[in-house]
Amino acid sequence: MHKVAVIGASGYTGVELLRLLAGHPQVTVICVTSRQQAGQALGEVFPSLAGIYDLTFEAVEPAALAERAELVFLAVPHQAAMGMVPELLAAGCRVIDLSADYRLRDAAVYAEWYEPHETPELLTEAVYGLPELYREQVRGTRLVANPGCYPTSVALALTPLLRNQLIDPATIIVDSKSGTSGAGRAAKVDTLYCEVNEGFKAYGLPRHRHTPEIEQTLSDVAGRPVTISFTPHLVPVNRGILSTCYASLTGVSSLPELLNIYRQAYAGEPFVRILPEGRLPNVSQVRGSNFCDIGLAVDPRTRRVIVVAAIDNLVKGAAGQALQNMNLMLGLKESEGLRGAALFP
Amino acid sequence: MHKVAVIGASGYTGVELLRLLAGHPQVTVICVTSRQQAGQALGEVFPSLAGIYDLTFEAVEPAALAERAELVFLAVPHQAAMGMVPELLAAGCRVIDLSADYRLRDAAVYAEWYEPHETPELLTEAVYGLPELYREQVRGTRLVANPGCYPTSVALALTPLLRNQLIDPATIIVDSKSGTSGAGRAAKVDTLYCEVNEGFKAYGLPRHRHTPEIEQTLSDVAGRPVTISFTPHLVPVNRGILSTCYASLTGVSSLPELLNIYRQAYAGEPFVRILPEGRLPNVSQVRGSNFCDIGLAVDPRTRRVIVVAAIDNLVKGAAGQALQNMNLMLGLKESEGLRGAALFP
Amino acid sequence: MHKVAVIGASGYTGVELLRLLAGHPQVTVICVTSRQQAGQALGEVFPSLAGIYDLTFEAVEPAALAERAELVFLAVPHQAAMGMVPELLAAGCRVIDLSADYRLRDAAVYAEWYEPHETPELLTEAVYGLPELYREQVRGTRLVANPGCYPTSVALALTPLLRNQLIDPATIIVDSKSGTSGAGRAAKVDTLYCEVNEGFKAYGLPRHRHTPEIEQTLSDVAGRPVTISFTPHLVPVNRGILSTCYASLTGVSSLPELLNIYRQAYAGEPFVRILPEGRLPNVSQVRGSNFCDIGLAVDPRTRRVIVVAAIDNLVKGAAGQALQNMNLMLGLKESEGLRGAALFP
Amino acid sequence: MHKVAVIGASGYTGVELLRLLAGHPQVTVICVTSRQQAGQALGEVFPSLAGIYDLTFEAVEPAALAERAELVFLAVPHQAAMGMVPELLAAGCRVIDLSADYRLRDAAVYAEWYEPHETPELLTEAVYGLPELYREQVRGTRLVANPGCYPTSVALALTPLLRNQLIDPATIIVDSKSGTSGAGRAAKVDTLYCEVNEGFKAYGLPRHRHTPEIEQTLSDVAGRPVTISFTPHLVPVNRGILSTCYASLTGVSSLPELLNIYRQAYAGEPFVRILPEGRLPNVSQVRGSNFCDIGLAVDPRTRRVIVVAAIDNLVKGAAGQALQNMNLMLGLKESEGLRGAALFP
Repeated sequence: MHKVAVIGASGYTGVELLRLLAGHPQVTVICVTSRQQAGQALGEVFPSLAGIYDLTFEAVEPAALAERAELVFLAVPHQAAMGMVPELLAAGCRVIDLSADYRLRDAAVYAEWYEPHETPELLTEAVYGLPELYREQVRGTRLVANPGCYPTSVALALTPLLRNQLIDPATIIVDSKSGTSGAGRAAKVDTLYCEVNEGFKAYGLPRHRHTPEIEQTLSDVAGRPVTISFTPHLVPVNRGILSTCYASLTGVSSLPELLNIYRQAYAGEPFVRILPEGRLPNVSQVRGSNFCDIGLAVDPRTRRVIVVAAIDNLVKGAAGQALQNMNLMLGLKESEGLRGAALFP
Repeated sequence: MHKVAVIGASGYTGVELLRLLAGHPQVTVICVTSRQQAGQALGEVFPSLAGIYDLTFEAVEPAALAERAELVFLAVPHQAAMGMVPELLAAGCRVIDLSADYRLRDAAVYAEWYEPHETPELLTEAVYGLPELYREQVRGTRLVANPGCYPTSVALALTPLLRNQLIDPATIIVDSKSGTSGAGRAAKVDTLYCEVNEGFKAYGLPRHRHTPEIEQTLSDVAGRPVTISFTPHLVPVNRGILSTCYASLTGVSSLPELLNIYRQAYAGEPFVRILPEGRLPNVSQVRGSNFCDIGLAVDPRTRRVIVVAAIDNLVKGAAGQALQNMNLMLGLKESEGLRGAALFP
Repeated sequence: MHKVAVIGASGYTGVELLRLLAGHPQVTVICVTSRQQAGQALGEVFPSLAGIYDLTFEAVEPAALAERAELVFLAVPHQAAMGMVPELLAAGCRVIDLSADYRLRDAAVYAEWYEPHETPELLTEAVYGLPELYREQVRGTRLVANPGCYPTSVALALTPLLRNQLIDPATIIVDSKSGTSGAGRAAKVDTLYCEVNEGFKAYGLPRHRHTPEIEQTLSDVAGRPVTISFTPHLVPVNRGILSTCYASLTGVSSLPELLNIYRQAYAGEPFVRILPEGRLPNVSQVRGSNFCDIGLAVDPRTRRVIVVAAIDNLVKGAAGQALQNMNLMLGLKESEGLRGAALFP
Repeated sequence: MHKVAVIGASGYTGVELLRLLAGHPQVTVICVTSRQQAGQALGEVFPSLAGIYDLTFEAVEPAALAERAELVFLAVPHQAAMGMVPELLAAGCRVIDLSADYRLRDAAVYAEWYEPHETPELLTEAVYGLPELYREQVRGTRLVANPGCYPTSVALALTPLLRNQLIDPATIIVDSKSGTSGAGRAAKVDTLYCEVNEGFKAYGLPRHRHTPEIEQTLSDVAGRPVTISFTPHLVPVNRGILSTCYASLTGVSSLPELLNIYRQAYAGEPFVRILPEGRLPNVSQVRGSNFCDIGLAVDPRTRRVIVVAAIDNLVKGAAGQALQNMNLMLGLKESEGLRGAALFP
């Protein structure tokens, strides 16, 4: 059994990681940490995990943790992660960081959208943990930057089009919608039940921090710099991201042709499902699962293609993808512990 | 007191019309009809209206109704409306048709997106009931085609930009999201609670029937043919439409300049609110009210403007707008019976 | 026009009071106060009220307020209210206190369930503002203790049975369910969207603070001390209270007989609707309205009666009832500004 | 691998059974049937199962099915089940019937609450599949009547009290609340999204069909006839049942004593969690899992005990319990395929 630990396990990403890890046959969670909850039983803080784990939140230093765990998941806010990663690596731990701290390769870009980076030398070492694009690099690395939820959905939605130069990158518009768990578990008026329920809004315009992360990946697959418009929205559901992506076709691709290209691009991928012609994805069909469902439409009137991708923001958009990366890093079957079907309804 | 009737009052638009009409001091509802509910008390079918109306659903013929009512609201499905309108007009009634039957001026376009039209001669007589654009025509007509919910939000969102030639019409992309009441009250698996709740999806791609209606109005204000991409989505809320509209700026307009143009364009309008810089609308803030809230953002990286408009699909998107048109047609104060604040939370 | 003010207008009860007062033809809100929001425009804090009010939150002292307003609504937490009421009364204001501070007549009971009372001498002067039971006293008083949401629903549900000695008071069990707005607008993890949505729980057992308030009213109408079991639950809706009340029948009353007694007991009441036999209330049918809907069932197998009452916790359970009391105090028509139908769907 | 089939797999219970069976290492689903969906791929009808099953809905006769499957799950409406069970048993299949047809042992009681029974001779053979009470009988039987969702929650909530004669059975009142998936997947106006969302109601009073099933089990454990009051309510969540049970204590049991009795009663049970003192269950903490969470409170003022039990109606209340029964019947580990933690949030 591989021993792993979760630092910052008291948020929604933390509890989801622990739910998934509980079902993994070759991994044991030996420690969960949380400054705020230290000393409390895990099952008391998260009653859904009572009877499943017999752990108590600890307030351990990263270095001490490294002696007990082979691999550590960091589920702390950005800026906090970069304060722990060097120490964990130095102590011999492999790290999957679920924050934004190591996702951008360019320290200047990080500084522009976040703050100045404290450990820029690690940015080039870190591997962006989107297995469908960077599988081999993930296997060998000691530091995975686990992708953001929005960027995961958009990268998977647009990669086949960009790789095959089927769209004009300058025309890409991404209209994304996220469930509320993406806003975290901190007490804020804005995410109170009565503020979110029966509501719907756009936010973060025009500079949401996931924009440079999306552009970095799209530029990678396009082979040249890509700049996009990205608008996130808040949906009154617990889980789910739906990204509706628009772009102008460069040629006269038909919908069946495009669907074929997508099916080939993702052939063999365990977690990407291309929907049949005429079908579009619904976040309710991926809830709790690691799938990314992708549907396409072509509008002959405007010569645009519309790609819609759905994921569970806490699974393929965070904890599930982290497990997928862990499986690759530990040499396990990539889908181990991640084959559960979505919870519908 | 003006006497009005509602034909097809057993759907969500019907019950909302009756809620609003109950608060109007100069109008009395003398008859509600429904083939299915005929004979049942209104308060039994809609307990929310018990103690407010003392009416029973009737199964009256349009002509007979015309003798009792000065103005009739038609809240029946498209195709059904065109079977009643000629008779009502012939009997001397004025008609506000909430279906799609008289919204498109061109019978060929109607035939392309719906079915062949049975009374194409009335298409040019009908006035498209968007008071902010066609106020004077509404006052004098005997037949108002009440706009669709999506088209109302998009027309109000984009008119100032198109009128002032600030955007390239060929770049317009409209990503709209609607509450579930827009799907009607017919029993269907797709709109069952468990199918919609905790879900989110796009639908109707790439040819939703509201597209030509939107394009007709945008072409009017632009002064030339406009073709757009339009993607509707279904949101798990009862009420509300949020339309996120994208377009490339033709010049270097700043956000403050654009906001000023919007404030001037809608100065004096009782039901359009332009939000301050940095604020974006939320459907929860217009729920149950006749307001259209509009917020703007400019993305200097892509030179695109993003306009977000929020309405209640059953009020400004249907029943409220119908009352607004009724007030104009009857020579009453335009906002009479429509000044209620949104129900928040 | 009567001039009124709202102290503590930045919570859900405050915004609902302002929504209702905006539709009242004989009353003007001259001031809204909030320590936290002082200086901010009302329409900025509550976008639903933009374009309806032209007020800015002030940080006024109660005494200063008394010079400007004839009547003041106190929408502050309990304990805070008792610090303001004496000063307001002394300055000549009439007060409707929406907190719990003046609801219990007995200072010892208040001390047992809350804290020691600072102004016990006012407890006997204050009138419990449930118009259906204490209408005449409300008219003449200068201090109304506006009832709690749960207590309003239970008092209206059980009064006809207790007045007519049809049930054994010792057998009363009240199982109540409340929408989440009842928990207020303070930022807390427990009322975050993701904690409440798709959840359902009982809370506050076995000593919720509304228990003595319920018992005080039931004892009044029964003419002898009544002790009940009361269990509140949290429902994932914004608004609404449904109280399911159980009691053993003392005789062999039939359902039609009981319904007749209820219809007579509430004959002429503008805001109580007794549902027909076989119908039970739904909070969705009173949302946004001041109605209390009551339905009954009799179980011949157990000789118990089940009374189900539904209100909107923010309207008949708070702000609407406060307006009803205001109308009585100011000698206006009791239903003025309160005749709006529920918002359904 | 044991081969099983699911008859009537196109409802919510069916899709949940298939979700759970997909994660069971020793069982294969060889056939799913549905008259309406025959010929359609499973993943087309239920996109959540795409990529997980490679099955197509068939329209097989029960007898033909028996040749292919060792055990059959019947997820058809009551009355339909009794038309298939005899044939399946005769063909040598073991059957887990998720309908109500074989739950009541007394044909006269079935006739009183449902219709006359067609195969009353099987009623005594069928085993009521609540493993916590009837584990040994389940192991040996060829016909399990899988319990209803409400009855499961109530039986587990009240058994320790009744077995130990700690309450007066005549005082039991059960106030239950159910998520909307319990109403099934048939298209009905009453369960449309807009009818259920933001609503809350009691229904089925005073004679819900689960009443005799609850009473049969409680009478079993009490050792004498028990008659209860049972009120079901509809909650706007997809999944979950919360039963709040009231009864008068016969003695002076303290809360810690009662909690000890519960912990002992359910010691070793894999799916019953007794919550610590001061904690009450929330359906959100069992969503998607087979757990039943139980919390207690004692009200010294009224000498009543309040027991609150939470389950997922589709799991412990239907499909999960069916798997638990299957495991017992097939001699597998009882918790196999059922150890997943709840999906929170």
